[in-house]
Amino acid sequence: MKSIQLSTSKRTQFLEISNQVQAYVEETGLIDGAVMVFVPHTTAGVTVNEHADPHVMVDLDLVLDEVVPWTRRSYQHVEGNTAAHAKASLMGSSALVPVQGGRLVLGTWQGVFFCEFDGPRTRSCHMQVLSGA
Amino acid sequence: MKSIQLSTSKRTQFLEISNQVQAYVEETGLIDGAVMVFVPHTTAGVTVNEHADPHVMVDLDLVLDEVVPWTRRSYQHVEGNTAAHAKASLMGSSALVPVQGGRLVLGTWQGVFFCEFDGPRTRSCHMQVLSGA
Amino acid sequence: MKSIQLSTSKRTQFLEISNQVQAYVEETGLIDGAVMVFVPHTTAGVTVNEHADPHVMVDLDLVLDEVVPWTRRSYQHVEGNTAAHAKASLMGSSALVPVQGGRLVLGTWQGVFFCEFDGPRTRSCHMQVLSGA
Repeated sequence: MKSIQLSTSKRTQFLEISNQVQAYVEETGLIDGAVMVFVPHTTAGVTVNEHADPHVMVDLDLVLDEVVPWTRRSYQHVEGNTAAHAKASLMGSSALVPVQGGRLVLGTWQGVFFCEFDGPRTRSCHMQVLSGA
Repeated sequence: MKSIQLSTSKRTQFLEISNQVQAYVEETGLIDGAVMVFVPHTTAGVTVNEHADPHVMVDLDLVLDEVVPWTRRSYQHVEGNTAAHAKASLMGSSALVPVQGGRLVLGTWQGVFFCEFDGPRTRSCHMQVLSGA
Repeated sequence: MKSIQLSTSKRTQFLEISNQVQAYVEETGLIDGAVMVFVPHTTAGVTVNEHADPHVMVDLDLVLDEVVPWTRRSYQHVEGNTAAHAKASLMGSSALVPVQGGRLVLGTWQGVFFCEFDGPRTRSCHMQVLSGA
């Protein structure tokens, strides 16, 4: 397993980490299998989506803000970041990408994004290769 | 890894692919472990849900349409398919199913569904077996 | 693979199962790799989120209820639990956690939660270790 550190500069921010994941896969020498990306935080997540037009992730931020309002009188979690926790579960704490011939098998438009929902913060992100069968 | 091609005929469509995933697992000879399904597109995803009553997936389509309206003035992605991208991240780009004795361990009512959110299109879907430990 | 039984006592309930997952990993002797948790039901799911303040999961319940109303005239699934199916897909049927040195690599605030969305019921939950590469 390898961990990388990430620094976020905004409350919500999507950081593409595809290159770091690819570099890790090469370090391990994995040929065929998969790589998991795991976010060890409860107000951040990970998703795979478009990296060509950055407006897609701007819009994803907007959609999630509509779905999970930052303020709601009925929230009970006193830290005030309930929305960030909910967005983390909606995106998920892990992503899994196939590896073939030592390369991530991502689609043309796909990138792996660390999802910050309660920044700015310093964050960790774990990566672990899994054996194909 | 194996890739299959899928043709969708509607903007939103849930195609059950459980049989294709089971057939792939048998081809590989995997006995115990897991199989991942990975969608290499940014306006499609994959989910595991009920395959007995097709109304469940009709309703999931309806729920997602309410959660992520197709049109919203504030969307910045000019291709007009922001909703499809957001739905892809909500469902996720991968699904993981345990394999035991060479068989997918799905519950009685479960099926694996490719989720088209911006069809009709010709799509790919990757499958990769992972070794149990 | 190992299956555990869970009894839920409310319609929506988040049961932390981190200890059961850790105990299973120890039984298998896995040192480095990952463990998958798989829910073989279509009205339940699994997520990783905060286990320190139980109000976080209370709020997640509230958020999901707002996102997916229990009653909506247009739902076609006649069993009346469409919302539970949709919540299951939003959270997902599987979670994946890295294992290092025989221990789950969860963040300080993270726990693995079985998500009941249509209880009370008796449920199963599968766990399967995957080999690191």
